[in-house]
Amino acid sequence: MKLTSAGESHGKGLIGIIENVPSNLIIDIEMINKNLFLRQSGYGRGDRQKIEKDSINIISGVRNRKTLGSPIAFMIENKDYFNWENIMSPQKSDETLNTVTKVRPGHADLTGLIKYNHTDARNILERASARETAVRVAAGGIAKCFLNSLNIEVEGFVKEICGITDNNNYEFAELKNSKKSDLFVLNAEAEKVMKDKIDTLKNEGDTAGGIVEIRVKGLKSGFGSCMQYDKKLDSKLAAAILSVQAAKGVEFGLGFNYSKTSGKYAHDEIFYNNNAFSRSTNNAGGIEGGMSNGEDIIIKAVMKPIPTLMSGLKTIDYISKKQCTADTERSDVTAVPAFEIIVESVVCLTVAEIVLQRLGGDNMEEIIKRWIQLP
Amino acid sequence: MKLTSAGESHGKGLIGIIENVPSNLIIDIEMINKNLFLRQSGYGRGDRQKIEKDSINIISGVRNRKTLGSPIAFMIENKDYFNWENIMSPQKSDETLNTVTKVRPGHADLTGLIKYNHTDARNILERASARETAVRVAAGGIAKCFLNSLNIEVEGFVKEICGITDNNNYEFAELKNSKKSDLFVLNAEAEKVMKDKIDTLKNEGDTAGGIVEIRVKGLKSGFGSCMQYDKKLDSKLAAAILSVQAAKGVEFGLGFNYSKTSGKYAHDEIFYNNNAFSRSTNNAGGIEGGMSNGEDIIIKAVMKPIPTLMSGLKTIDYISKKQCTADTERSDVTAVPAFEIIVESVVCLTVAEIVLQRLGGDNMEEIIKRWIQLP
Amino acid sequence: MKLTSAGESHGKGLIGIIENVPSNLIIDIEMINKNLFLRQSGYGRGDRQKIEKDSINIISGVRNRKTLGSPIAFMIENKDYFNWENIMSPQKSDETLNTVTKVRPGHADLTGLIKYNHTDARNILERASARETAVRVAAGGIAKCFLNSLNIEVEGFVKEICGITDNNNYEFAELKNSKKSDLFVLNAEAEKVMKDKIDTLKNEGDTAGGIVEIRVKGLKSGFGSCMQYDKKLDSKLAAAILSVQAAKGVEFGLGFNYSKTSGKYAHDEIFYNNNAFSRSTNNAGGIEGGMSNGEDIIIKAVMKPIPTLMSGLKTIDYISKKQCTADTERSDVTAVPAFEIIVESVVCLTVAEIVLQRLGGDNMEEIIKRWIQLP
Amino acid sequence: MKLTSAGESHGKGLIGIIENVPSNLIIDIEMINKNLFLRQSGYGRGDRQKIEKDSINIISGVRNRKTLGSPIAFMIENKDYFNWENIMSPQKSDETLNTVTKVRPGHADLTGLIKYNHTDARNILERASARETAVRVAAGGIAKCFLNSLNIEVEGFVKEICGITDNNNYEFAELKNSKKSDLFVLNAEAEKVMKDKIDTLKNEGDTAGGIVEIRVKGLKSGFGSCMQYDKKLDSKLAAAILSVQAAKGVEFGLGFNYSKTSGKYAHDEIFYNNNAFSRSTNNAGGIEGGMSNGEDIIIKAVMKPIPTLMSGLKTIDYISKKQCTADTERSDVTAVPAFEIIVESVVCLTVAEIVLQRLGGDNMEEIIKRWIQLP
Repeated sequence: MKLTSAGESHGKGLIGIIENVPSNLIIDIEMINKNLFLRQSGYGRGDRQKIEKDSINIISGVRNRKTLGSPIAFMIENKDYFNWENIMSPQKSDETLNTVTKVRPGHADLTGLIKYNHTDARNILERASARETAVRVAAGGIAKCFLNSLNIEVEGFVKEICGITDNNNYEFAELKNSKKSDLFVLNAEAEKVMKDKIDTLKNEGDTAGGIVEIRVKGLKSGFGSCMQYDKKLDSKLAAAILSVQAAKGVEFGLGFNYSKTSGKYAHDEIFYNNNAFSRSTNNAGGIEGGMSNGEDIIIKAVMKPIPTLMSGLKTIDYISKKQCTADTERSDVTAVPAFEIIVESVVCLTVAEIVLQRLGGDNMEEIIKRWIQLP
Repeated sequence: MKLTSAGESHGKGLIGIIENVPSNLIIDIEMINKNLFLRQSGYGRGDRQKIEKDSINIISGVRNRKTLGSPIAFMIENKDYFNWENIMSPQKSDETLNTVTKVRPGHADLTGLIKYNHTDARNILERASARETAVRVAAGGIAKCFLNSLNIEVEGFVKEICGITDNNNYEFAELKNSKKSDLFVLNAEAEKVMKDKIDTLKNEGDTAGGIVEIRVKGLKSGFGSCMQYDKKLDSKLAAAILSVQAAKGVEFGLGFNYSKTSGKYAHDEIFYNNNAFSRSTNNAGGIEGGMSNGEDIIIKAVMKPIPTLMSGLKTIDYISKKQCTADTERSDVTAVPAFEIIVESVVCLTVAEIVLQRLGGDNMEEIIKRWIQLP
Repeated sequence: MKLTSAGESHGKGLIGIIENVPSNLIIDIEMINKNLFLRQSGYGRGDRQKIEKDSINIISGVRNRKTLGSPIAFMIENKDYFNWENIMSPQKSDETLNTVTKVRPGHADLTGLIKYNHTDARNILERASARETAVRVAAGGIAKCFLNSLNIEVEGFVKEICGITDNNNYEFAELKNSKKSDLFVLNAEAEKVMKDKIDTLKNEGDTAGGIVEIRVKGLKSGFGSCMQYDKKLDSKLAAAILSVQAAKGVEFGLGFNYSKTSGKYAHDEIFYNNNAFSRSTNNAGGIEGGMSNGEDIIIKAVMKPIPTLMSGLKTIDYISKKQCTADTERSDVTAVPAFEIIVESVVCLTVAEIVLQRLGGDNMEEIIKRWIQLP
Repeated sequence: MKLTSAGESHGKGLIGIIENVPSNLIIDIEMINKNLFLRQSGYGRGDRQKIEKDSINIISGVRNRKTLGSPIAFMIENKDYFNWENIMSPQKSDETLNTVTKVRPGHADLTGLIKYNHTDARNILERASARETAVRVAAGGIAKCFLNSLNIEVEGFVKEICGITDNNNYEFAELKNSKKSDLFVLNAEAEKVMKDKIDTLKNEGDTAGGIVEIRVKGLKSGFGSCMQYDKKLDSKLAAAILSVQAAKGVEFGLGFNYSKTSGKYAHDEIFYNNNAFSRSTNNAGGIEGGMSNGEDIIIKAVMKPIPTLMSGLKTIDYISKKQCTADTERSDVTAVPAFEIIVESVVCLTVAEIVLQRLGGDNMEEIIKRWIQLP
């Protein structure tokens, strides 16, 4: 289940192609559209989000909501393209309109201009934009349909925004409630403080980052590899998560706290009950030796604050080389809930790919049979 | 510069093949052997390390210390193989000797046994062992020869062990001193406290993890991609680092602290001095939009405590299903310094690969010319 | 320049995404559409081709006909989708309409049904159809824009149809005339005999295959590899050509005639004139040791006869298991001219990819500079 | 089952690493060594072959002749390295000894020198040499062990040498006899004429190429893909075969004769007998729509004559730029039997890789179970 992604932020739309999807998988289009909506929502988002409500337009690989076994291509149209056609058209457009030259710190603008030998940062930001992540959410939704067919579940929540942390521990079943909050936060008290913080930041033209936690339940043991370094489950997940715009770190289980915990308290002892191996702790976050060990996979990822500030960051105009205030393209205070959905999506894609590699198979009937036969 | 790795811990030796190395690169064999030695050393290591002093035996791809342009194969012999031949020989060996069935928590043992349908965890641990990282250190040394030819430098140090942190800030030039300490720590005071802690843990049969910091200096801007999610610099680095045995997290620049810092204080503003763009801070750790921005790359990675404890963790015997104490294969208290060298090595490999992809080229003369021509 | 392809024959359309295209490449949309038209034309084609005139609809990666450096997504719409929507819609369609169960010999039908666990061969043939090659022609056109920027030219012609051969030798410059013939044949006499043959076959409800020759001019020496077996130029070209529907063989230079020619007459001796190495023959077809040697690349490929015959082949109904005559989906006698354009296109894509790997670079200005600097 | 290959012709040895080999596969070392011997033998070979008798030295991934599931590294030592150490040593060698500057037509010499910026063609030919194929034969042997476990058989024979053809048709079972001939030819009459021809060529200082045929029996239907162009069985096989030194063409089933056969006689009609689909012809060579169809896979490949002629080809001295006679490194008249074994080996590797991708699985018990469950 390999995703190829294309599309500019204000172009005709975003395109994704997913290869290696088995046949006879039922695609839950409503769930995918709901996830696309969740990616656009969240307390602290600006106004652009409200105009465009994304939805998936499947072009190939699916017939009557069931996969054929061929590559799934889909499009997420940019609903305001008609306003941008004269600026962005592949065929004929006016490149002197809406140029961006006051390169924005924290973005790809400056580096991209040099690398691709452009003079208008629009040519960079249109693709580097977080809008691209809509493709990953749609594709992650298709991966989720696959995982759910095997009773593998992926859920997540927002754990911290701008220094305000939800320190509660949650059962996996509770995580499903996170989407009831418009910050995807499970702790109502923490949520309230976060919202106050967001309001304050908004007034100051400032922005916030945060931390999300994602868990995978139902993945049997043995996914990944202890034999080849480039097939380790944690390596694959880390690559996927750090490929998300604005992600700056990832950890599994105890993560950076492993550095503060001695071996005696760090590792998950093994027991045997009811004819099955078990563990009473899960500090490893479900991954030992580069493989799933049958416990829940537990991942945390951090998002940096949105780098476009209404209060303006100092920068340089790329053409005049004069000091100035950075251009602004949008006005969100925070997008941590969106980040949560995106990270959840890339985790789904990564796990689906690894599951498919181990199971092989071309159609869902065969794959489910093999899944059941796995120890 | 793609590394393929093979070899068991007590087999004949470890083998690596590096592909895509340009011709006419001078290989500094002494530096590589020094790094192999550093991987074996460090305060808190047990005795096995002292027996075997690793060295690289280049088999192909190099003639008179200069690369040919062909794949470089090398071997790191296991010096005590003669003691293990009757147990491990590919040709003929006795599989009933030295079996491991008291599966060790924190290791690949239990999961591996099920996945590969073995009954002796030796068949798992021999490959899953951290000994495999010697291949990465040797290959990383070759990558370092390449990077140094372009004046790209990679250095690192140990920042934290078992909760004791060196909070100082260091210039890049200072990092080279870290190897003078047998904990690779720059702060003598912190080092002393760490050693005391290690001694205490040793007495208790306990172990420690820690945090290392790696920096890359001299990498020009534009390496990685803002256009394709799977070519981002941070994604590639994260994958490499999480492929190291015992790594449980990675962060870039401010990393998880981005969650506590509002946008105003999080981003690196852009200036223009002496005909060049510059920044006065480097919170981004040198990566914006999935690309190097010309500042130092700053990476932190965390290692979990060694999961083999002399005091013994509770586990199950895989055959009898009886509760027992885990088998022990070695007796280190901590291997964080080794982890530092390994992470440094995989960073070298990853950066070298990305540099080569952007520069193309088949021989060093051509590559150096293109490097100089890069903006 | 990696192409990902998607789309069913009677779905909404075909989709392609090309990654790794440098920025600032001018896209010649008219040339691409002309190639799409050529793929649909040719003496001996049936009627369906006449209804739909394919054209490329670029969705991303291009602004005002110049590449951005981001992935290029494009769509080739199926103009008669409105007739098929109730049968093929991803969202809601009636799977009992237009089913295909009389599986066609020479097609993917029977094998695909078993592999993907379908009961209607439409679910197979919609993707396995040669219509998919339109994506390759469009992508090949983009690759051709790139190659032409470096003065690399790719041309081809039809050499044989159903046993009638054009045995003339042609200069590269002459090849451009092949598209003036509606069989892409350069020899008017041979063309006439071929057309008579096609007419006869049509009357008999029979079909024909043929041989095409493709040449690449202007590729400098050293593309490919003599150091790694999986990077050889001929290996990559063979993989590309055998990935074309109905291709059953490929050869380079003398090809299978090498078996009849002794070494003295087989190899291209080397001379030195005007400060340059030269050869007076090109039996090797421009490839020695897995690399281009600077001479024209010469490739021949064979296409099998179209397996759908109006006269009907014997087969089995997949459901009833009764003997019957195969279903027919189209009525062409031969598609060798289309095959010529398709093979030309995949050769363009392959050469462009190999050129980009060796040159590296992100924008056309940089790439052209490096190309000129190559020896 | 991915092979990475390294090693120079007169270096310490050749190294291969095979990844993705399942655990618990029995390795038949004697069979592998026999194949290595067959690669070195054959009527028409020179004397060097007699000195060195290759054998596989497995270094990792195997214990007591059974795979562990880890990468298999192996070495084929160059038995005369001690004669070459002062010339070829990676550590310290004299690069002025045994230089090659009279670049040999038909080899990588000239192109390689320019590409890798060397002045001694030894630096090219040591790796470009056909000796590298020993690695593929050894790896192919391991792949064959795997295929045989699933009752998939791969056999082949020499069909033509220097224009003398064996036109007989053979049952699959007969092919096993080919290795009784020292030309791997099944037809004793043809063999005799070929040997006379070889003797004549030897007297004239000339060389010969030829055609080999390889077949795969027992591969079930559905391997490869009709959905993704880069996963087609014929594409993968063509890439593997054209990666063999001196290969210049490949065809499947009727191959280039498809161009001379009309559709009525070209395609394999489908029948149903004894509750199974069947075909009475196999013109397709077992591949339709990019997938195996259950019939024997039939492949032909052509080898060019050995380009090193004792009678000498005209060339240029790379340093002096003077006309001269090409350097000679060996003195074979033909190596078509070796080519047969090599092509057989790369076919084994390719089929094993494709089988593993479809079956998934980590250990042989699991894989065999899934194989049996396949329709």
